[in-house]
Amino acid sequence: MAGGATFSDAKPTPILKDELDIVIPTIRNLDFLEMWRPYFEPYHLIIVQDGDPSRTVRVPDGFDYELFNRNDINRILGPKASCISFKDSACRCFGYLVSKKKYIFTIDDDCFVAKDPSGKEINALEQHVKNLLNPSTPLFFNTLYDPYREGADFVRGYPFSLREGVPTAVSHGLWLNIPDYDAPTQLAKPLERNTRFVDAVLTIPKGTLFPMCGMNLAFNRQLIGPAMYFGLMGDGQPIGRYDDMWAGWCMKVICDHLGYGVKTGLPYIWHSKASNPFVNLKKEYNGIFWQEELIPFFQSAVLTKECTTVQKCYLELSKQVKAKLGKIDPYFLKLADAMVTWVEAWDELNGSGENSSNLTNDPEK
Amino acid sequence: MAGGATFSDAKPTPILKDELDIVIPTIRNLDFLEMWRPYFEPYHLIIVQDGDPSRTVRVPDGFDYELFNRNDINRILGPKASCISFKDSACRCFGYLVSKKKYIFTIDDDCFVAKDPSGKEINALEQHVKNLLNPSTPLFFNTLYDPYREGADFVRGYPFSLREGVPTAVSHGLWLNIPDYDAPTQLAKPLERNTRFVDAVLTIPKGTLFPMCGMNLAFNRQLIGPAMYFGLMGDGQPIGRYDDMWAGWCMKVICDHLGYGVKTGLPYIWHSKASNPFVNLKKEYNGIFWQEELIPFFQSAVLTKECTTVQKCYLELSKQVKAKLGKIDPYFLKLADAMVTWVEAWDELNGSGENSSNLTNDPEK
Repeated sequence: MAGGATFSDAKPTPILKDELDIVIPTIRNLDFLEMWRPYFEPYHLIIVQDGDPSRTVRVPDGFDYELFNRNDINRILGPKASCISFKDSACRCFGYLVSKKKYIFTIDDDCFVAKDPSGKEINALEQHVKNLLNPSTPLFFNTLYDPYREGADFVRGYPFSLREGVPTAVSHGLWLNIPDYDAPTQLAKPLERNTRFVDAVLTIPKGTLFPMCGMNLAFNRQLIGPAMYFGLMGDGQPIGRYDDMWAGWCMKVICDHLGYGVKTGLPYIWHSKASNPFVNLKKEYNGIFWQEELIPFFQSAVLTKECTTVQKCYLELSKQVKAKLGKIDPYFLKLADAMVTWVEAWDELNGSGENSSNLTNDPEK
Repeated sequence: MAGGATFSDAKPTPILKDELDIVIPTIRNLDFLEMWRPYFEPYHLIIVQDGDPSRTVRVPDGFDYELFNRNDINRILGPKASCISFKDSACRCFGYLVSKKKYIFTIDDDCFVAKDPSGKEINALEQHVKNLLNPSTPLFFNTLYDPYREGADFVRGYPFSLREGVPTAVSHGLWLNIPDYDAPTQLAKPLERNTRFVDAVLTIPKGTLFPMCGMNLAFNRQLIGPAMYFGLMGDGQPIGRYDDMWAGWCMKVICDHLGYGVKTGLPYIWHSKASNPFVNLKKEYNGIFWQEELIPFFQSAVLTKECTTVQKCYLELSKQVKAKLGKIDPYFLKLADAMVTWVEAWDELNGSGENSSNLTNDPEK
């Protein structure tokens, strides 16, 4: 359909292709990449292989990738590898650590390209990049959602001094088909599918926590990377399926403190299959109890003025975890130590980030 | 199409028809009601005629209505009529005062029935009632939006203790076609139209302020009525077009304090014509400056434990307005007094509301 005088093209333009890595945790062959080929092929993939390192994970031809298995993680991090979870998708955060790029997009290997209501394929990566390059508005709610989007703006009564927004650190995308429910909800509503396409991106207001899902997530690694630690989950731990939640709560408290924004909404991906609710219940069991104390903890967490970098914020938070959550279960003492190890590993591979609080992204309004 | 054995009918079912009044401020004939006839005819209308009371406002046949002009307002309220604005749609709050119903829906006379993307007419009133009868979730953000909606639920990581939600006090609907922009934005984007149908209802989180527009708004009068004062605007006042904003900021602070919820999103109405941006600029001029101080004031306003009813909250807020905003302009001293007069008028017509904090709506999950 494209006329000779236009720039339109069947292939999507790979935005920020030298500044973004795609991180994929997996235990299986990555055939799901075939569907993403037109969107992901120009980018570098970081594949974090979970489970048995002797198993071969097949990656379709033509993709530019690095693959790290448990042996690689142990070799690269040495004793600090203890902070990286095993047999849980929490291991994905190792990919954030070894990336050298400014932006990360992470996606699960059971997520496929979704279609919008017109039947057009959704370029999830492109929408995440748009979300990250445009500012956020955490200080006042805009009723027409993202004011920077085409066809929208700030509505009457929105203070002019807040219209520049703040740099966006995180873009949280959603899922059509299988919704991200916990085991009890999965058990109660085994047939529920998400069919509602909500055409909106919005900033989660300052001071408000949300459940961050790691299935379809992008972030500015330079702004917030050291806070994107997915915790200790899976093998040898009393909890699973709270990796992304933990990262989301820590990250949100730190973004609120440092003045960064977090968005949720578009883009959608197609989530193909529900995980086993009985297995999930076993993993989530402790988390379901613990989150009742974790939420008030994060809602009331205060970071001091001295916390001027993400690392300093994160270390301060780890101290508060130790002091206030250790009484729930000794697991949190171990987790607090792992948070410190994570930051040490981050600094070892990426520098101490003393300047990271001065970094801002480059809002394209 | 309806079979004999079904209850389906071309006419919408009038939900809560004996418990809801529709309040319409106007200066002209209400021909716009023709389009709303199937939706509004079963309900009682309270028409607040602004401007010259000797002018006749024609109401299409078949509607059940009361009409109040300025003479009526003066007669009913006596000296307290001073708190009701003149020559500004802020006068609509007089309708809230004289209603005897539990719920209010207020709509502007340039708003018509919108269509959803499938071309189906949107029953705005029905959606508002749904929003008001279902609980709100201000304490934690749900990424799939309204968890009580069909096909949705609370996502993984949402604390179970918060899933009952809180009573909903306010339902803020949106507008297709002409967006609710301020004069500077209208001037900069004269041709912008809102064409994006966002299929979502969401709770504005606790602690977050938003710009509440009075064009398409419903609320639980029993829960929050005395806080829905639209201030002193228009004739004789240095400001206009901030009536709904003022009410929204006061209302939100009080809802947050008393534990009530505020929703925004669906339903859409079709907003037919843009008001004159030059006239609007004149009205808004002071407000554009003042809101820069009003927002921090409301963001930091704290109500004490003694504020157990909406009236007590509102009187406490009026004191803080006088003490902290009086220095911006003497207008705020007058406004603070009018806030007190409004509550006195409310109590005179409706009782003191000593029990109103015990009222809850009846969530239909």
